Amino acid sequence: MEKLTIIKVGGKVIENDDSCNLFLNNFAKIEGYKILIHGGGVMATNISTKLGVDTKYIEGRRVTSKEDLDVVTMVYAGLINKNIVAKLQKQNINSLGISGADGNSIQAIKRPVKEIDFGYAGDVTVVNSDLFALLLRAGITPVVCAITHNKNGQLLNTNADTIASEISKSLCKLFDINLIFCFDKKGVLSDPNNDDSVIENINYDNYQNLKQENIVTDGMIPKLDNAFSCIDKGVTKVILTHHNKITGRNGTIIS
Amino acid sequence: MEKLTIIKVGGKVIENDDSCNLFLNNFAKIEGYKILIHGGGVMATNISTKLGVDTKYIEGRRVTSKEDLDVVTMVYAGLINKNIVAKLQKQNINSLGISGADGNSIQAIKRPVKEIDFGYAGDVTVVNSDLFALLLRAGITPVVCAITHNKNGQLLNTNADTIASEISKSLCKLFDINLIFCFDKKGVLSDPNNDDSVIENINYDNYQNLKQENIVTDGMIPKLDNAFSCIDKGVTKVILTHHNKITGRNGTIIS
Repeated sequence: MEKLTIIKVGGKVIENDDSCNLFLNNFAKIEGYKILIHGGGVMATNISTKLGVDTKYIEGRRVTSKEDLDVVTMVYAGLINKNIVAKLQKQNINSLGISGADGNSIQAIKRPVKEIDFGYAGDVTVVNSDLFALLLRAGITPVVCAITHNKNGQLLNTNADTIASEISKSLCKLFDINLIFCFDKKGVLSDPNNDDSVIENINYDNYQNLKQENIVTDGMIPKLDNAFSCIDKGVTKVILTHHNKITGRNGTIIS
Repeated sequence: MEKLTIIKVGGKVIENDDSCNLFLNNFAKIEGYKILIHGGGVMATNISTKLGVDTKYIEGRRVTSKEDLDVVTMVYAGLINKNIVAKLQKQNINSLGISGADGNSIQAIKRPVKEIDFGYAGDVTVVNSDLFALLLRAGITPVVCAITHNKNGQLLNTNADTIASEISKSLCKLFDINLIFCFDKKGVLSDPNNDDSVIENINYDNYQNLKQENIVTDGMIPKLDNAFSCIDKGVTKVILTHHNKITGRNGTIIS
C-alpha cells in the first residue's frame, strides 16, 4: 500500500510565527502523501476575550456556546487554517484547507448531554475516506481544522486529536499510515525529569509493564490508549514526538 | 460543452439568516455543475468594530490593514464560508469551501500603491482552472470566499465580483458558463423608479444606445463593462438578477 503520513500539531506551535514557520518547513520536507490536522485553542480564547465571549472549560474540555462556536469557526477554519495553507503554498506544497463540513469530510453528532453539557461539541461519526483519497491522489495535501458538522446544517467544535485518530482509522484501509502526534517533549519519557529518556518503542505488551511499574502515568495514558486504539484499527505506526522533530526517526513509536 | 453556473452573492444576503436560507434553497435547486462566490463585508466590519480594528474605505473600496486582513480572513473564509457549506451539505449539495490559497485556486498580486495604498488588497493574476474542474467533476460544488494569496505566503483581500469574473473567464475554455450576479433589483431597469422595468437582453450594440440615451448610468456602467469583458473572453451569458430569482429565466441577460 502507498504510505500516508498524518500529523497533528497543537495550537501553541501554530500560533507563534517562528515555531509555525519552523514546523511547516519540516512538514514540507516529508515525502509522499500527507495530511495536517491543527488545533488553535489559545488564539480562539484570545479572540473570544477581545469579543467579550466567555470561554468555559470543564474537566479540561472546552464548553462551546453558540458565540464561542462562531469564534472557533472564525479562528480555526479561517485565520489559522488559511495562513497555514498560504505558507505551505509558498513552499510548493499544494495544500487545501478543510473543515469537516467541506466535502462532507467529517460528520459528527452533538455530544449528548449527560452530567455535563459541552454545548456545540462534536463526536465524530463518519470520515469520508473517498474525499481524502481524491485530494491526495490529485497531489493535494489536506490541512484539516478541528470543526466538523452534523450533516443537518450545524457546525460542531471537535477535539483535534480525535479528528487525527478518526481520519487515520478511516484511511488505513487505503494507505499504510504513520500517525504523528506532536507535543513539547521528545517522546514518552521513562524519567519525567530527563528530557532525553525517550522510550523508543512501545508495543501492547511492554505498555502493560510500563503502566504497572508507574513509568507511564496520568496524562500520557489517554494519549497511549488512543494510540493503541488506532493500531487496533489498522494504523501501521503512531509516533509521539517533539514538534521540531517530525522528520527522521525520532520520538516514541507505538506499534 | 458541459454547462456550469457561477453565482456571485453579496454579503448582505448571506449575513441575514432568513435571506441566506432562502438563497441557498434556490441555489441547491440549480442543476448541473455550479460554483458559489460570496462576499461578507458588513459582517467583517461588525467584527472589526467589536475587536477595535478600524475599517477604512477610499472610493468605495476597503483599505485592508494587517489587522483588517486577519478579520476578513476569519469572517469570509471561516464564519461565513463554513456556515454556507454546512447549510448546503444539509441540502445534499456536496460543497467545499475554499479561499484562493486553497489548492492554489486563485493567485493575486498585492495592489501596487499609486495615489492610494489599499493595503493587503489583491488583484487576481491566475485562476487554477484544473482545480475547479477536478472538484466539479468529482461532484463537488466549490464555495469561494473573497480571499486570495500571492503564492509567497501572503493572503490578500479581493473583490468578490472580480473573483467571480476571473473564475468564469478561466473556466470558459472547459465549460459553457452562465455567470449570475445577484443584487437587490430584478435586473437592469430602464426606469429606476419602476422595479418592473427590467431590460431583458443587453448586447454590445444596444448597450451603446442605452448609454447614449442615459438609460444606463452611474453604478450600473462598471457592472455592465465587467459583464461584457467576460463575454469577450468567452463566457456564454452574464445575468444580473435579484438574489431570490436565481432559478428560471429572470433578470437581465447580457450576451
